[in-house]
Amino acid sequence: MEDIVFHPIGIIHSEYKHTKDTPIQPASGMGTSGSVEILPEYVDGLQDIGGFSHLILIYHFNRSPGYKLKVKPFLDKNLHGVFSTRTPFRPNPIGLSVVKLNSRNKNILEIENIDILDGTPLFDIKPFIPDFDAVENVKIGRVTKSRDKISNTLNDGRFESESKIINQK
Amino acid sequence: MEDIVFHPIGIIHSEYKHTKDTPIQPASGMGTSGSVEILPEYVDGLQDIGGFSHLILIYHFNRSPGYKLKVKPFLDKNLHGVFSTRTPFRPNPIGLSVVKLNSRNKNILEIENIDILDGTPLFDIKPFIPDFDAVENVKIGRVTKSRDKISNTLNDGRFESESKIINQK
Repeated sequence: MEDIVFHPIGIIHSEYKHTKDTPIQPASGMGTSGSVEILPEYVDGLQDIGGFSHLILIYHFNRSPGYKLKVKPFLDKNLHGVFSTRTPFRPNPIGLSVVKLNSRNKNILEIENIDILDGTPLFDIKPFIPDFDAVENVKIGRVTKSRDKISNTLNDGRFESESKIINQK
Repeated sequence: MEDIVFHPIGIIHSEYKHTKDTPIQPASGMGTSGSVEILPEYVDGLQDIGGFSHLILIYHFNRSPGYKLKVKPFLDKNLHGVFSTRTPFRPNPIGLSVVKLNSRNKNILEIENIDILDGTPLFDIKPFIPDFDAVENVKIGRVTKSRDKISNTLNDGRFESESKIINQK
């Protein structure tokens, strides 16, 4: 199958300059604010986005140095397949976060509840529509046990340790 | 900003051979089944995925011929910015669907509730975790009016007409 080339449409700004201390997911980053800066040539694509309260951001984990197929996710001591985790070290380092949209001013979107590193390249924005994106009666396998810890957990430095391991390979 | 190259990790199989008659979103494709075939070199990355009932698939809208910044989405007669719609004709044609995982057999995932064309290249699989991915008190702007039509709407041929228009550009 062919490789596919994507080009950033903008950049995500946040208060998180380093992977350490970044919330592990938007749920852990409740209340933290940031912004999305869309490149001027795409600004017309934002028309009517202000009607939506939540957006799905699809972005590049551009500080991911590579991947392993088995990883130790946050809140867990065991190895699991990369596709059953949300680690940024993935075969295709594509990130996905649901964030709250507070306001739009021209090519700038003010957002909230973010878990994304400052300077992250953005590929796409989609409106969050519960009928499409929220499902019910969900089972979450290995995460079940640690669920109550998600909302107040920050990165514990494991990305940095993992980076070193991957870079040593 | 730099272009980024992604490579498919697998392929999505479904009963939808043409864009026409494909459900416009998983919610419209309730009950329709298909499968995800992961390339053999990534199969170890699927460990423990069977514990999750729902997966987020991130894939390539590989039959999207291009994009326009203003589009007429399904269930709507007016033009809207591409980033306030879920059209496959996007600056970076990245698709996202939440699907139900029924079973796994080696490198094959049997899935349900799909709205994806047969033969679609897959970039990533993430476990759907409500604490991360489902939000509450959501406003859905222009979609509010047509919400009750989502669950029983198929593609009306608009992608095909749009393809022709884009190809003529």
